Amino acid sequence: MAHELPKHIDIHEEGPREGFQIEPPGFTIADRAALIEALADTGLRHIQVASFVSAKRVPQMADAPELFAAVRKRAGVQYTGLWLSPQGFERARATPQVDLTGTLYFYASDAFSRANNGIGAADNAQAQRAWVARYRQAGLPISTAYVMTAFGCSFEGVISEEQLAHTLRFVADLEESEGFRLDTFYLADTVGMANPASVQRRVALARRILPHARIGLHLHDTRGIGMANALAALQVGVDLFDASIAGLGGCPFCGSAHGGAAGNICTEDLAFLCRELGIETGLDIDKLLHAARLAEKIIGRRLEGRLMHSGLPEELHAAPGTSAA
Amino acid sequence: MAHELPKHIDIHEEGPREGFQIEPPGFTIADRAALIEALADTGLRHIQVASFVSAKRVPQMADAPELFAAVRKRAGVQYTGLWLSPQGFERARATPQVDLTGTLYFYASDAFSRANNGIGAADNAQAQRAWVARYRQAGLPISTAYVMTAFGCSFEGVISEEQLAHTLRFVADLEESEGFRLDTFYLADTVGMANPASVQRRVALARRILPHARIGLHLHDTRGIGMANALAALQVGVDLFDASIAGLGGCPFCGSAHGGAAGNICTEDLAFLCRELGIETGLDIDKLLHAARLAEKIIGRRLEGRLMHSGLPEELHAAPGTSAA
Repeated sequence: MAHELPKHIDIHEEGPREGFQIEPPGFTIADRAALIEALADTGLRHIQVASFVSAKRVPQMADAPELFAAVRKRAGVQYTGLWLSPQGFERARATPQVDLTGTLYFYASDAFSRANNGIGAADNAQAQRAWVARYRQAGLPISTAYVMTAFGCSFEGVISEEQLAHTLRFVADLEESEGFRLDTFYLADTVGMANPASVQRRVALARRILPHARIGLHLHDTRGIGMANALAALQVGVDLFDASIAGLGGCPFCGSAHGGAAGNICTEDLAFLCRELGIETGLDIDKLLHAARLAEKIIGRRLEGRLMHSGLPEELHAAPGTSAA
Repeated sequence: MAHELPKHIDIHEEGPREGFQIEPPGFTIADRAALIEALADTGLRHIQVASFVSAKRVPQMADAPELFAAVRKRAGVQYTGLWLSPQGFERARATPQVDLTGTLYFYASDAFSRANNGIGAADNAQAQRAWVARYRQAGLPISTAYVMTAFGCSFEGVISEEQLAHTLRFVADLEESEGFRLDTFYLADTVGMANPASVQRRVALARRILPHARIGLHLHDTRGIGMANALAALQVGVDLFDASIAGLGGCPFCGSAHGGAAGNICTEDLAFLCRELGIETGLDIDKLLHAARLAEKIIGRRLEGRLMHSGLPEELHAAPGTSAA
């Protein structure tokens, strides 16, 4: 099993955005900034702090500029934001603490693109040309792209490999015609439709069509197989993952009839998996557990992470019959 | 990845015992029997109903005979019990509804054996000779054995492969000297110390030392990597798993400082993983979800299963903008 495993992976933290955008509004700037600072203490080098989206649709993120301003930044850590509209991008640009990145967003699912974004997948893809121009005007290299719902969505079901390939080829053509090269390309399992076999096949597909890009995975544990999907990705050498501390997050479009779907794969559980497999993450798991338990304290209910509730295996108990000091 | 995957696996249900033995006493016989009947409706062929253990140590299981008597049994399903003492076995024998099995229990961890069983691992292993005689006297073939804490425990930490091999060789020698052959041998990750690499290595070790036995895995999701461990096992052809509906269960010896450890890997999430990989389980996932939600209703708090809260991927939502009938 081990011969394909990467020696080192990077985990990008999504919890502060993914987590608080689905909770009710009202969490204080101070608490959220404290969590972000605890995350930056763990060795994480890339933390998505908030999104700059419609305050009407996502009131939880209306205070994104204030949150960025409140965080004491740590050198060497990127504090990123997410935006989907030119207005959002302008708000992010007007927030000096944001580490801006030239990120494009594509959708494999047309219906999900409409629901999330107001326009269909093809129109959204065409609209990325304007984003290329906008980023260039702002002096930002076009470094990263995501394809959301790369495995399926709650409206269309499983997205075929052909449909995904169509989106990927559009991305490759856009690179060609606009004269840029992505560093990083993410397959996002936005609502948890991936499985270990589809992960390995679609990573291979993305590598064929975008051979120069580092392939990352954004996985959700919606159906309990998120960590198996991560293992399958590691086994084909994927070395970049989005994850959320304590498993924060979820999807407002799925599972509401049954109590709500689980969020991203859990940062500290993924870091633990890597540690056990001898894969370096550069992360301090004790500090991740501290951050996860802080997140649980702030949110105020039991969160989905496992390691945070059990502790590391080396946290031994006194055996019965041995005398305690 | 797919060339080693089994075509079909069997899942043995542990939830009724694993789950209710760690909950406070007081759940009604009627509720627990209803859950067991719902489980038998799903296609599960092997359900562990209760344990016959000290009513003083585990008052939750004091009513095991009454619970067995209350269950309307379904043809083709085995309703098993667990015992660790001759008294417990006699109580099980006196309960006509129990499907008795000749099962031996070994421990790789000496300290865990003392905590769970009152005697060290070597003494417990020697004591299995008396169990062979006792089962023979009762007309039961010696079919199954477990090695508990096969990966490690909360008192001793990681158990070395050498220490596990020592236990396995004892089992093989016992077979030889007592003249029996196990059908099934389980590696039990009792407190969640396994990882995908150790799963694959220890399955290979068990196959070398006990080449005639079918190797099963009893996995816990204590640290969030239980499903990755299950995938690793499937990848080397393991075709027998214990699991618990809704992820019921846990371990009273671990994680109490952090809110309690997660239980067994979740039956319906594992069945879903298998479905997605084209591995047959013979289980009806909709009926498993029904049983999982019934378990949650009985227990009265959110349980750890994921699929039960999100629903199957084919449970599509109406896309925004489409008219509902």
